[in-house]
Amino acid sequence: MRKNFGAESSVYPMPVFIVAAYDENGKPNCMNAAWGGIYEDKQIMVCLSHGHKTTKNIKESKAFTVSIADARHVVEADYVGVVSGNKEPDKMEKARLTTVESEFVNAPIINEFPMTIECKLLKFNEDGICIGEIVNISADESVLGEDGLIDPEKLQAITFDPVHNAYLKLGEKVGNAFSDGKTLK
Amino acid sequence: MRKNFGAESSVYPMPVFIVAAYDENGKPNCMNAAWGGIYEDKQIMVCLSHGHKTTKNIKESKAFTVSIADARHVVEADYVGVVSGNKEPDKMEKARLTTVESEFVNAPIINEFPMTIECKLLKFNEDGICIGEIVNISADESVLGEDGLIDPEKLQAITFDPVHNAYLKLGEKVGNAFSDGKTLK
Repeated sequence: MRKNFGAESSVYPMPVFIVAAYDENGKPNCMNAAWGGIYEDKQIMVCLSHGHKTTKNIKESKAFTVSIADARHVVEADYVGVVSGNKEPDKMEKARLTTVESEFVNAPIINEFPMTIECKLLKFNEDGICIGEIVNISADESVLGEDGLIDPEKLQAITFDPVHNAYLKLGEKVGNAFSDGKTLK
Repeated sequence: MRKNFGAESSVYPMPVFIVAAYDENGKPNCMNAAWGGIYEDKQIMVCLSHGHKTTKNIKESKAFTVSIADARHVVEADYVGVVSGNKEPDKMEKARLTTVESEFVNAPIINEFPMTIECKLLKFNEDGICIGEIVNISADESVLGEDGLIDPEKLQAITFDPVHNAYLKLGEKVGNAFSDGKTLK
């Protein structure tokens, strides 16, 4: 038997994207966004409400980064989703987050988060959704496997549970993709 | 030290959305999509290439469902992402998937997947991205907790690892959202 829950904005998994941009004085700010994902090839989308300081910053600076929140920084990730940069000018310091400028775009990389998607603003689309062109992905060496690639077990990315307002870690591997249907035969 | 990987369509987590719709004869089909997420309040987006049978079906039937792929059905979820309904008319049967019609929209619910987002097609937007209005979310009673809500530990949703072409399970809770920054003080 199935139970109906009505119309909700809930899927699994939902990301915990930490979206960061510079303001007009080059001061970094960031926020937590769960509504987003890959939009098209090498493009990312994030739904950002109009009133956010980060929204304004992206419109002006034409660039942003998306950090993948990780289990080591759940508290920091949650803090930047709850406290507004419009009200707390020292939001980054209060969140204990530090930044360096991306080599590729005019946006801050948050040092504490181990994986960052560096984006040029393509546009806010017809629905006001922020669309970025992914220019580079960078990751701290501490989360790379022996193959030199990002290792999800080391990355410890988190996901938002919209039903319980909680954060979950990504867990173990359960299968291979692109197995060409062979396993079904 | 950070390593640069260039422009890639990779984030963590990426969903494993099983997108299903009826064709012009009421025959269900489905496909696996990793590019998508919540778009706006009660709206979901999925990037579906033009050539997919499911894309054509959604354009005609004006509705679709998104099933959340789970660890019990990794093989089925992967199969429907590899094999095209344009080439395999019995794709659903081959995938061992059965359906019932949604009570709310003109689209099939796949019985085997425990959580389903039932959508009316809002539009294919200016970039050709499929946008659905979430009309209902339903879940099998077997994945509900004692509170009557979806329990992620029972749901066992999976996520796509684009770096290793693998599927990972969602893991344990690591924190609470909306803690109002209190934990930082």
